[in-house]
Amino acid sequence: MKAAVVGAGSWGTTLANVLAQNGITVALWARRAELAEEIKNYRENRTYLPGVKISSSINVSSDLEQVIHDSNYVVMVVPSHSMSAICRQLGKYIIDEAIIISASKGLESDTFRRMSQVLADELPSRFSERIAVLSGPSHAEEVSKELPTTVVAASAKRQVAEQVQDIFMNAYFRVYTNPDVVGVELGGALKNVIAICSGISDGLGFGDNTRAALMTRGIAEITRLGVKLGAKPATFGGLSGIGDLIVTCSSLYSRNRRAGMEIGRGKTVKEVVESTKMVIEGINTTKAAYLLANKLHIEMPITEQAYEVLFQNKSPLDAVSTLMKRQGKHEIEDMVFEKSVEW
Amino acid sequence: MKAAVVGAGSWGTTLANVLAQNGITVALWARRAELAEEIKNYRENRTYLPGVKISSSINVSSDLEQVIHDSNYVVMVVPSHSMSAICRQLGKYIIDEAIIISASKGLESDTFRRMSQVLADELPSRFSERIAVLSGPSHAEEVSKELPTTVVAASAKRQVAEQVQDIFMNAYFRVYTNPDVVGVELGGALKNVIAICSGISDGLGFGDNTRAALMTRGIAEITRLGVKLGAKPATFGGLSGIGDLIVTCSSLYSRNRRAGMEIGRGKTVKEVVESTKMVIEGINTTKAAYLLANKLHIEMPITEQAYEVLFQNKSPLDAVSTLMKRQGKHEIEDMVFEKSVEW
Repeated sequence: MKAAVVGAGSWGTTLANVLAQNGITVALWARRAELAEEIKNYRENRTYLPGVKISSSINVSSDLEQVIHDSNYVVMVVPSHSMSAICRQLGKYIIDEAIIISASKGLESDTFRRMSQVLADELPSRFSERIAVLSGPSHAEEVSKELPTTVVAASAKRQVAEQVQDIFMNAYFRVYTNPDVVGVELGGALKNVIAICSGISDGLGFGDNTRAALMTRGIAEITRLGVKLGAKPATFGGLSGIGDLIVTCSSLYSRNRRAGMEIGRGKTVKEVVESTKMVIEGINTTKAAYLLANKLHIEMPITEQAYEVLFQNKSPLDAVSTLMKRQGKHEIEDMVFEKSVEW
Repeated sequence: MKAAVVGAGSWGTTLANVLAQNGITVALWARRAELAEEIKNYRENRTYLPGVKISSSINVSSDLEQVIHDSNYVVMVVPSHSMSAICRQLGKYIIDEAIIISASKGLESDTFRRMSQVLADELPSRFSERIAVLSGPSHAEEVSKELPTTVVAASAKRQVAEQVQDIFMNAYFRVYTNPDVVGVELGGALKNVIAICSGISDGLGFGDNTRAALMTRGIAEITRLGVKLGAKPATFGGLSGIGDLIVTCSSLYSRNRRAGMEIGRGKTVKEVVESTKMVIEGINTTKAAYLLANKLHIEMPITEQAYEVLFQNKSPLDAVSTLMKRQGKHEIEDMVFEKSVEW
C-alpha cells in the first residue's frame, strides 16, 4: 500500500506522519526543492511544523511524478488557490485504481468551486467516482502530539469513504465516514466567515455568551445555505461543521479569528490584510457566501453584517446592534429541515 | 405588568434586572431574609452577583406571598432540588392568568423530572398550558454587563413563548422562541455530562481537537437520547443545546467543567466532591443519563465512559482509550433524523 501526500505544509506533513505510523509507504511532495531538502536532512519540517519528527520511512521529494508513482492513495493538501493547477499537472501520473483525497479546506476564489469539484473537473474523468474529502476539528500541531482527534472522511461512494477511514484511523486519530461531500466541504470553508465574526466579537470585548450566539446562529445560517446547495443539515451539526467551528473560534492558531480580533479592536480591514503575508481565507469566503445568499434568497444575517464590515466600512459595533435589534424570531421554524413543525 | 422572580442567585438577580430595565414592575424573592435585607440595603447582591447594581425599582423580599401577589409572570430560578417544594408553597398565591417560567436547569434527582414537569405536577392544573422555559448560553455575569446574549423561550403554546420573548427581549438580550420544551430542557441538563468530560480532557492535558470531538459527538449522543424522549433533533443544534454546551465547556465559571479538570489531573471523584460545598449537578445527571440510555437502548459511549469514571473508578485515560478504539463508525447514519439516507 502506497500513499502520496501532495503538499508539505503543517497539515500535509502531519497526515504523512499519521499514514507512515499506520504502516503505509508514504511519499511527501514539497513544491520547493529547498523545503524537500530541509525535511530530508533534518527529518523535521522546520518551516511549517517545527519540533515534530518526520518519520524516517517517508520519502520526501519535490519531483511530482516520483511522489505520485504507483500510489494507491493521493492526498491533496495544497492551498485552495493552487489546487486546480497542481491537479492538471499530476493527473497523468496517477494509477487508474487510485483514490484521490482532498484534505484542503476553502472554496476556489472567483469560481467558488469546492475542492472536490476542482478535483473532479481537473483530473481525468476515470477518477470521478473515487474522490474523497477529509475534514474536521484538527489542529496539525495537536495531531502531531498524538492528542485524541476525530475527523470525517466523506465520499459519494461508501466504499471509498471506508477505505479512507481504514488507512487513516488509529488510536489517536479517529475517522468517521459521511456520504455528504457537499456538506462536509461547505462546513470547512464557510466556518471561516464565523471565525472572523467571533474574532471581531472578542476584539470588541464581548464574552462567551456573544461568541456562543455567533457560532450557534452562524452554523444555523450556514446550514440554510448548505441545504440549498445540496448538503444534508445533520452534517453541519457534526465534526466538519460545528466541530471544526468550535476549534477555529477557540483557537489562537486561526488566522481568520486573529484578523477578526484586530478589526474588533479598531484596525481597518486594509491594515489587517496588509500586516500579514498570508491569505485570510475567510474574507473572500464572506464575499462568496454573501453573493450566494443573495442569489439564492437565503437569509444570512451574520454573513450580511460581516460583509458590510469587511467590504463596506460598517463599524463592527453598528453591525452587532443591527443583529441584536432584528425582529424577534422563532429558533426552529427557520431551520429548513424542521419546516414541518406544527405550532 | 408585574413579574415575580423567585430565587435571588446570580441568574435570578440578573433576570430581575433585565425585566426592570424593560419597564416591568419586578419583585425578587430571596429565601433568606438576611440576603433580602442585604440586597435592599446595598442595592447589590454581594453574595451571588457582586459588583452589579440592582435596579432601584425592584422590590426585594423573603415573603413569598407578597412577591407573587398580582404577578402576571412568575419566573422560577431556584436550584432544581428545591423546585418541587417551593412550587407547592407558592401555587396558591398565583393569579389565574399568570405565565410561569422556569429558568432553572437540571433534572430532579431520583425522579429525573424536567423542571417544567415539576411545575406541571406541583402547581394547580389551571397553569398547565401556561408554562414556559427560558434557557441558552448565558453567563449571568456577562448579561449583567449588557454583553450581547441570546436565549430561547420554549413553550408548548406559541402565544406563551411569544409573551415570554416580549417581556425579556431588549438590545443586549435577544430571545428566540421554540416549541420544543423537552429538547430545550434536556439540552440544558445533559450538557453538564459533557462539561465534566470536557474538563477531564483539559485536565489530562489534551487540546482543542479533543474538546471539540467530545462536544460534537457528545451533542450527537444527547440528541439520540432526547429524540427518544420526545425532543426534536434540531433543538440540540440550537442555543439551548450546542450553544449552551459551547459556553459551558469554554468557561472557567462552570463548576462541572472545573470538577472534570481536577479529576483529569488525578484527584478522585470523592476528593473533588468533598472539596466543594456546592452541588456538582453533572455527576447526578451522568448517572441519570446512563440509566436512561440503558433502559431505552440508546448508544451513548461518552456518557457510558463518564459513568465508569465517576462511579466505577475507571481511570480517565482508559476511558479515552476505550472511546478512541471503538470500531469505525459512520457519522450520519447513527443520527436518528437521518436514518433515511441512502448510501
